[in-house]
This record gives sequence, C-alpha cells and structure tokens, in this order.
Amino acid sequence: MEKTRRESVLLDVLDRKIVHPAPIWLMRQAGRYLPEYQALRKKAGSFWTMCMTPELAVEVTLQPIRRFDFDAAILFSDILVVPHALGQDVRFEEGHGPILDPFAGLHRLVRDEAVWREKLAPVYHAMRGTRQALAEDKALIGFAGAPWTLAAYMLEGKGSPDQRAAKLAAYRDPAQFAELLELLTAAVAWHLVRQFEAGADVVQIFDSWAGGLPEREFSDWVIGPNARVVAAVRQRVPEAKIIGFPRAATQTGYEAYAAHTGVDAVSVDTAVSMRWAVSALGPLKILQGNLDPIALIAGGEALDGAVDRIAEATRETPFIFNLGHGVLPETPLENVAQLIGRIRSRK
Amino acid sequence: MEKTRRESVLLDVLDRKIVHPAPIWLMRQAGRYLPEYQALRKKAGSFWTMCMTPELAVEVTLQPIRRFDFDAAILFSDILVVPHALGQDVRFEEGHGPILDPFAGLHRLVRDEAVWREKLAPVYHAMRGTRQALAEDKALIGFAGAPWTLAAYMLEGKGSPDQRAAKLAAYRDPAQFAELLELLTAAVAWHLVRQFEAGADVVQIFDSWAGGLPEREFSDWVIGPNARVVAAVRQRVPEAKIIGFPRAATQTGYEAYAAHTGVDAVSVDTAVSMRWAVSALGPLKILQGNLDPIALIAGGEALDGAVDRIAEATRETPFIFNLGHGVLPETPLENVAQLIGRIRSRK
Repeated sequence: MEKTRRESVLLDVLDRKIVHPAPIWLMRQAGRYLPEYQALRKKAGSFWTMCMTPELAVEVTLQPIRRFDFDAAILFSDILVVPHALGQDVRFEEGHGPILDPFAGLHRLVRDEAVWREKLAPVYHAMRGTRQALAEDKALIGFAGAPWTLAAYMLEGKGSPDQRAAKLAAYRDPAQFAELLELLTAAVAWHLVRQFEAGADVVQIFDSWAGGLPEREFSDWVIGPNARVVAAVRQRVPEAKIIGFPRAATQTGYEAYAAHTGVDAVSVDTAVSMRWAVSALGPLKILQGNLDPIALIAGGEALDGAVDRIAEATRETPFIFNLGHGVLPETPLENVAQLIGRIRSRK
Repeated sequence: MEKTRRESVLLDVLDRKIVHPAPIWLMRQAGRYLPEYQALRKKAGSFWTMCMTPELAVEVTLQPIRRFDFDAAILFSDILVVPHALGQDVRFEEGHGPILDPFAGLHRLVRDEAVWREKLAPVYHAMRGTRQALAEDKALIGFAGAPWTLAAYMLEGKGSPDQRAAKLAAYRDPAQFAELLELLTAAVAWHLVRQFEAGADVVQIFDSWAGGLPEREFSDWVIGPNARVVAAVRQRVPEAKIIGFPRAATQTGYEAYAAHTGVDAVSVDTAVSMRWAVSALGPLKILQGNLDPIALIAGGEALDGAVDRIAEATRETPFIFNLGHGVLPETPLENVAQLIGRIRSRK
C-alpha cells in the first residue's frame, strides 16, 4: 500500500534524519506511575481487562501524551496477547508478573488465523481508536514480543531471570523448539501486520530475554527469528518501520542484530555504552534508548547528567530518546517532566 | 613473602602457560547438587553454620574434589561474610536467597580490623584446614564479593535483579556512596590478604551485579573499586594471583575491566562470545569460564557441543574451564562427570 506518511519527528528520525532535540517516548509510558492510569485500573479491575477493552486501552494509551506531550504513543497492550491467541492463556495478579497456563505442547497451539483474528480483535480496535483520537503529528507505535522471549514465557509459565525451562527444552529437543519458534515467528509477524493495517506507523519487537544466551543460541533463537519476522512483515507491508530491542544482548550480539535482522532501528539497554553504539551500530541503524529507569526515579543531577551524556554521545546520529527498559511504577511524575524539559531545551 | 609455588595446572595457566586439557573447576562446585553436601547440610542445620564451622567448611570444600577430581578447590564460604564482619548480619532461609539486616547507615559499620579478624576467624581456620587436607597439586581458591556487589546486597537487604536500592542511594548521594565503596574496598582487600596468609593460592573477586550499569557507573562502581582492591592486595602479597569476574558486563565493560583493574585473569559469563573474548581480552588476560550452567543441567549433545565450542575457541590462549555462573542445584551428577570426561579427553 502506497501512502504519504504523516509529519512526525519520530518518523523523520526513522528516515535517518538527525533531529534536535531528539524525539522522545518511553517504554511503558502508559502505566502504573500515572495516577490517571491507577484510577482507571481500579475501575477496570485488571490489567488484562484494560488491554482487551478497546475504549480503556485507547484512553490509557493517550494519557501520557496528554500529560507529557511525548512524540509518539505506544498502544497499551502486552506481549502475551500472542500466546493468548495461540490458546495459552495468561493472567496478571497484582504485585506479581504474568502467570501463563501450563504449556500443553506444540500440537495444542492454535494455528488458525481466524481464531487469532477473533482473539486479538480488541487490540486492533484499540489501535484504530487511538489513531483517530491521536494528534496527526504523533506517531503511533505497535509492538510484539519476539519469538524467543514469548517461548521463554510460554515454557516457564512466567518471567524468569535465566529462562531455565525454555533453555532446557531447547537444549534437550532442538527440533521441537525450532518448530515452536517458527510458529511464534509466523504469529508475531501476522500480529505486527494487523497492527500496521489498524493504523500503526511503527512497530517495536521486544526480545526482552535476549541476554544470557550463549553466542550460538543467540544466533539461532534471537537473530534468526527476528530476521524472519521482519522479512515476513515486509512482504505484506514493504515500507514497514521496525525497531528491534534485543535487551541485554552482548555487544557482539547487538552488532549481529543490527547487521542481520533487517530492522530500521535498534533500541539499546542501559548498560550499552552510547559512544560504542554510535560508532559500531550507528552507521547501520537508527538508535534508540539507553537511559537508566532508575536514574529517572532518582531525578535531580543524576538524571540531568545521564540525559546530557546520552544526548552528547548521539548528537551526530539519528536518535530517539527512550529508556533502556520500561518506566518503573515508583517513578515521580516531576522527574518525567524534568527529563522532557531537559531534552527539549537542547538545540 | 618469597615462596616456590606448588605444581598445579591451574597455577601453570595463571602463569600464562597454555595447558591441554585445560584445568577445570566450577563456581559453586561445593554445593546443593551433591548428595554428600545435602546430607551434611541436614545435620548442620543451615548454610551459614556450615560457612562458619571450620571442620564443616573444610569437609564441604573437599567433597567435589574427592568426587570429581577438579583441578582446584574453592573454599566453601560466602561473599556476605564481609557485611557480617562490618556488622550487618545476614541469614539464609531455605528456598530464598540471603536476607540482610536493614542497612543502618555508614557510620554504624565496623571499621575495626580486630573485630573483622575475630568475626572472620572461622573462614581463615577453614582455609588452613583445607590446605592441610588438600592434595599438593590442587590449587586452593579464596574469594570475596566486589565492593559494588556487596553494596548492592547491603542497601537492598537481599539479591535484586536491578539493584534498585543501591543505584538510587548512589544517584541521590554520590559522596556517601563513594565512601561506602571505599570502606568495602578496604574490607575486601583485607579479607583477601587474610585468605592468602591462610593458604589460598589464588583468589577470585565476584562482581556478580556488574551487569546493567551505565558506562559511567560501571567505571566508578566496578572498575575503580576492583582496581583499588587489587592494588591493595598486591601491596601486601606482591605475587597474588587474582581472577576477576564482572558478571554480565558489556564487552566494553569487560575490555575496561581487563585493561584497568590489574587482575591476572578474567572470568566471563555465558553470553560472552569466547571467540571475541580470546581476540579482545586474550592478549591482556588469562581467560576463564563461559559454559552455560543450564547446558550442564541438560547434558547430552547440547553439553558436548557447548564444551567443544569453548575448547576450540580457547585452544591458543591460557584458559581455565569453568561455568559462566554457579552450578545449579538440580544439576545431575552424571553431567558433571560427562563435562570433565569431555574436557580431559581433549589433547
């Protein structure tokens, strides 16, 4: 589909323009640190209800734009909607992370796109609703979890610091695990295409558990599936803008990710040296990310210094300001305002 | 002190000899995966009692040497003995990690070496007892937590995936945090020197929480304190052999660690590309580590393949075989035997 793209500083950067001040959005900018989110959450009852009720998801997506005038909205949703579509349900309990139903085997997962479409319809409705309500110059971001990260959740049944269940399954039965990754690759690409169709300008692929993998497994479980997701999306949406986030990858990992997945932009975590990223990844890819979410909680001089160091390092490269991980619930609102003020005061 | 060193393949490697097959020991080789450890632990009652009762610590240290003939013994102890010496006590509850008493402030920490010596006397007794009982050709390894990792435990009160309490304290009051790191640097160096005096051939400094730090903080909280610990140890023990383990550091982090801390050897975690490590760190430092502890649980072809890839990558450099993290409790004994057999069958 040919279309003229909207005027947006974020999309300018994704066309490799260097923009000062850099556009900014934050991972989990719609979330628990906002009192207006907490109020709505109380009424709705659960996180999942908010994800799956389009009018609530639209409202929550717009809240941080109204309050902070971020340069992009990211749809309020969750990476675990894909396992849900595949028939492995998930519940969120207050104070805990997500809990998935036990993995019942590859053959039990739903491969029928009509079922996926029905189960995920609320997400696409929310995307359409958000686009209608969102100012023209704000980019709208969709997202999905990457196959490895989803597989880790599905096999472990929850978040896990070392993805032990998934690694064990993969080490013990590589062929079966490859088949799971392939099904997830198809479902993730499908879900991203639907989000573009529903109005997303950009999508981000979150490989949140990309850290801690040996070199060979990083290649097989992260690089390969991400590359195949990107290729599959581009078959349907040739101009698709895609940001990849292989969180906590090593630097050789980030280099391979930049060289071989076909994403437009790479979001980097907090531990990555931005000077290194600009020199090693910058010639290949647009960069995003890096601010420590805990510096955002701390505020004050620590926050100003951290923002300035990132801004200095990225002056000469197309860059989107973001965190190295999601906004934490205890983040003070005034620190978010301080962050945005600091960035926008730069020329 | 001038002394002729023992004949040991591990010490040969630490003198930059390339040895085939590579010497091997495993982080947490004395521990819960061993039935003889479990039996003793049941009798002793607690992990801490075992650490602080010399005859038990000696016995547990020797168990994996008897069963697997590792090339080195690492004293059974814990990095949290240093906070204990400083007056912040710690308890270990079954199924949970360590819990420390709340941090009562820098001024409450004990700076009196006589108190440290009294509180840590069981550790040095255990070191002496182990040396007496250990075969002459086995190296004996002492260890300590690095200042940043200890500070993270002390301020958080427990292990933490993102070291939030310590980072917040440091961001909000850098001068106070620097003072805490300096006290810890002195105590850690002191503790390592005492371990050498009690018979350790080598020590390892564990900076287990070195991942996730921004570049500047990695430099201030990891590189600086590790370098000062090494320098302080070498003032008292000029020939001290020191292995550093800045776990989950980025590659620029590992490079800075190798270039600026003065350690003899760098232990690398599971995610590090060994080919990268050999080319980037190998010319500067002896290497150790890297095998995924979860591949050790999986066993079979996954384990053989992982071992072979590490062995191939490190053929031309002085190398000590180890894991990228500690042995996990559910590790089957036969897989440890398989690992050792695989390494020792290589020429």
